[in-house]
Amino acid sequence: MSSRKYAIGVDFGTESGRALLVDVANGQELATAVHPYANGVIDEHLPNTNIRLEPDWALQDPNDYLEVFKHAIPAVLQASGVDPADVIGLGIDFTSCTILPTKADGTPLCFLPELRNQPHAWVKLWKHHAAQPEANKLNQIARDQGYTFLERYGGKISSEWFFPKAWQILDEAPKVYAAADRILEATDWAVWQLTSVETRNECTAGYKALWSQREGFPPDAFFKALDPRLEHIVDEKMSRKLIPLGSKAGGLSGAAAQWTGLKAGTAVAAANVDAHVVVPAAGVLGPEQMVIIMGTSNCHMLLGAESREVPGVCGVVQNGIIPGFPGYEAGQACVGDSFAWFVEQCVPAAYAQEAEARGVNIHQLLEEKAARLQPGENGLLAIDWWNGNRTILVDADLTGMMLGMTLATKPEEMYRAMLESTAYGTRIIIDNFAANGVAVKEIVAAGGLPERNKLLMQIYADVTGLPIHRMGTTLGGAFGSAMHGAVAAGPTVGGYDSIFAATEHMAPPHAEEFTPRPPQQTIYEQLYREYVTLHDYFGRGANDVMKHLKQLREAALTGNATERYHA
Amino acid sequence: MSSRKYAIGVDFGTESGRALLVDVANGQELATAVHPYANGVIDEHLPNTNIRLEPDWALQDPNDYLEVFKHAIPAVLQASGVDPADVIGLGIDFTSCTILPTKADGTPLCFLPELRNQPHAWVKLWKHHAAQPEANKLNQIARDQGYTFLERYGGKISSEWFFPKAWQILDEAPKVYAAADRILEATDWAVWQLTSVETRNECTAGYKALWSQREGFPPDAFFKALDPRLEHIVDEKMSRKLIPLGSKAGGLSGAAAQWTGLKAGTAVAAANVDAHVVVPAAGVLGPEQMVIIMGTSNCHMLLGAESREVPGVCGVVQNGIIPGFPGYEAGQACVGDSFAWFVEQCVPAAYAQEAEARGVNIHQLLEEKAARLQPGENGLLAIDWWNGNRTILVDADLTGMMLGMTLATKPEEMYRAMLESTAYGTRIIIDNFAANGVAVKEIVAAGGLPERNKLLMQIYADVTGLPIHRMGTTLGGAFGSAMHGAVAAGPTVGGYDSIFAATEHMAPPHAEEFTPRPPQQTIYEQLYREYVTLHDYFGRGANDVMKHLKQLREAALTGNATERYHA
Repeated sequence: MSSRKYAIGVDFGTESGRALLVDVANGQELATAVHPYANGVIDEHLPNTNIRLEPDWALQDPNDYLEVFKHAIPAVLQASGVDPADVIGLGIDFTSCTILPTKADGTPLCFLPELRNQPHAWVKLWKHHAAQPEANKLNQIARDQGYTFLERYGGKISSEWFFPKAWQILDEAPKVYAAADRILEATDWAVWQLTSVETRNECTAGYKALWSQREGFPPDAFFKALDPRLEHIVDEKMSRKLIPLGSKAGGLSGAAAQWTGLKAGTAVAAANVDAHVVVPAAGVLGPEQMVIIMGTSNCHMLLGAESREVPGVCGVVQNGIIPGFPGYEAGQACVGDSFAWFVEQCVPAAYAQEAEARGVNIHQLLEEKAARLQPGENGLLAIDWWNGNRTILVDADLTGMMLGMTLATKPEEMYRAMLESTAYGTRIIIDNFAANGVAVKEIVAAGGLPERNKLLMQIYADVTGLPIHRMGTTLGGAFGSAMHGAVAAGPTVGGYDSIFAATEHMAPPHAEEFTPRPPQQTIYEQLYREYVTLHDYFGRGANDVMKHLKQLREAALTGNATERYHA
Repeated sequence: MSSRKYAIGVDFGTESGRALLVDVANGQELATAVHPYANGVIDEHLPNTNIRLEPDWALQDPNDYLEVFKHAIPAVLQASGVDPADVIGLGIDFTSCTILPTKADGTPLCFLPELRNQPHAWVKLWKHHAAQPEANKLNQIARDQGYTFLERYGGKISSEWFFPKAWQILDEAPKVYAAADRILEATDWAVWQLTSVETRNECTAGYKALWSQREGFPPDAFFKALDPRLEHIVDEKMSRKLIPLGSKAGGLSGAAAQWTGLKAGTAVAAANVDAHVVVPAAGVLGPEQMVIIMGTSNCHMLLGAESREVPGVCGVVQNGIIPGFPGYEAGQACVGDSFAWFVEQCVPAAYAQEAEARGVNIHQLLEEKAARLQPGENGLLAIDWWNGNRTILVDADLTGMMLGMTLATKPEEMYRAMLESTAYGTRIIIDNFAANGVAVKEIVAAGGLPERNKLLMQIYADVTGLPIHRMGTTLGGAFGSAMHGAVAAGPTVGGYDSIFAATEHMAPPHAEEFTPRPPQQTIYEQLYREYVTLHDYFGRGANDVMKHLKQLREAALTGNATERYHA
């Protein structure tokens, strides 16, 4: 046991979990380890069975989460050489909304032999989209009956959220629903496994389960209106007792100490969410600094001075990110994903050969070529809706668009238009916040993309007119969880009394700054105005061609079928 | 000398000339030969010099045309074994508007040592676009001064046409202009070289030089308003005496008999144009059958019952295609060109590998994959303006668009959307004719594309709702020229007294028919309505984003320059 103290954060992603061990005094990263989920994303058939899943399903195996504790935590202890007695706290963060049904003791229903063949007994991953009918009915009933809570969520909720997913269990597998003593977020479940104490955190309740500090959950009458069997879901399967972020959920149980190699009783923080936990790790503790976690999609996290209802924003939750502030979450459904689509589907063989000959990947080659273009030089404008629009239109049925192509248009010009379109999408979100009284004055970029694609960072700076700091670690999720672990431990054992103090000492300095360049801003200002016009034309009902095309595609695919033409 | 009689047609394209020898009695194709132009399209520097050409220039060497006579005609004589004495007539057709300045005896100015280094002394090929300032001024002055002749050309003329090109010579090289005793279409010049007699045909005068049978050329006052030195251009450099299509321009001169191996005195037809000459070869001799010559671009040729001014149509000329009828010309600026662009710029390496492994080309692979899709299944809609819009918007500054893309969109889906967009563009042209009282009841497809891409044919049938016949020869130009050669020869030597009689005996039967399929028509009807909405939105001023993007691109390229970003 030394005088130095450490905290561990564990970040549960879509395909794997990652542990990070940091020095509590200064935030130094000492060791990190990744453990992939053996069953990954379960979207074809249940493991070791022939039971097929329908389209839009996405499940996980809760045992895979336990395996992360059993492998990744020992790995960072070993790699760092740190004495477990010097690890004062442990925090975790998770994808959300990812939920599972369990027995009263926390045993997942899918662990029970009699329910193992029931798909509804497994974890429903955030991207399980099969509860869309339930989401649609919920939104409709809430609107029809005049409930106002949807206004905190931009006017409607998605099929990804807690109640549509829980309701789908009831709809399709009432026996599984009846067998479930508890239904909860995987992040709360994982903390339960570590501490042997069931807790529920305010963050996921607020962002995904319609809870607010002022109003609590929607009234039982609302759930009854959905389905009489749901009337008492909160009291029967959930909990009205929620704990705030940064609090201590409990001490590490003896069993969990065995799995991890940590000491029993080590402080475990309240469960957290992967995007939200990044904010303090990005050094952001107050309003006006937006944290954008950039990867396959963009998550925009922002603190407000006061709580306002901002149309089209995914959610606002008091204390939902940092205590004392309303936390806003917004998002773009597809960013890195659309660049990957472009690279995979639209880049000719000659570019693949050039990249290979030069020993770079195609993203790098395209970035290099695209970076030689000035703003406006590609003559192109795209709308970034390859996976619908999350904020501010909240419309999954919108699709991508590009215009301006000529016979001289080159792949790097289209690639740059794809990058630019996501910057315009982010600026619409920022302008929408500003128009509703929530100011943004600078951006901190987190996630994997900012380090890999610097052209993208400069374009975002030029398009938004805001300085962009690149976060000092690419492991923002695990880092933020470790910080929360240090806060859960508290000052008496060498931790901190608040996330503010933890941030002051631990958050890594920003790595790099991208500054808006006035001449380029002037050009992008004109392009952004064009984007806004088309965004509103295609997105706000003036021309619903994108929806009509989706309907025609749907009709063609579901065998509303005309005979196919064979050349 | 046998009892069988033959005619030869020579079709002058952009890169080469092609001769075809056919049996006058039944149109049987006996031999064909291609001779490429040694100097091709001259767009970088004058041959054998360092004299650089500016962007948008495209010249040719008239000697290359003579070489076609000297090589391709002997080649078809030899290959067929036909006795030159049995060849009764020769016809030619040419790209247009392709013009050159000559001395009074027909010697091209670029053959003169003292002018050979002057770019303006050479042939200006149809796609020479550097006379845009002159075209703009001409359109403006004609409108301002209330001249009505532009109405025959859809409201404005292009930089490709006769007077902008001739005026550019005067503007930029007044000495070359002064040295030019004659300025004429290359098609008339080539006939002059064959016959030693200078003639001018009604077709190019009507479609490209603002002439009409009723009004003649615009008055001298109009030309004076352009530039006082142009006042007498018609009488000084051109001719008011024009000969109709199908007439005999003269007999083959002794010199030309030497070049070609044909007999001196062989009838030579009035010069013709590559698209127009296809119409009788397609068996079309009256209204309601549209001939579409499909290749890099689409040319739509249509005969009317009476002459009407149809907005946006390239031109209407009485007797301009077939005697006794007003001939309409419309067009789409880019068809095969945009498919080629897609294949070159947008198809991933995996497809190139699959095509290679299967021994097909990428077009074939894409067609095969795209043909497995039903209408509407790609979920995409494109606008076919990769090279602007010729008919009916007459706007070179419009650009391409595609929408509906998702992360699941595949190259063959986009390729099919490109094909479909050109079919919608053709349907707009047909609907525009119909709305102005010129009916279309079926289509005859000519050119190279229809044989290669049958999916395209079926899509055109389904989108237009019209039966499409594929023309019986892919050598429509040379074939139509040979027919005109047989008419120039006349019945006394075994030819015909009219293009009607020639067509009856010679035109090849159609190869194939594509019939509209009602279920697919129903779907395409919906997609076409969406296309029309976007066509009008982007093309008629509601949203000029395409023009704004072009202006921004122009500004970026002409060093209205902000510092470039280097990653």
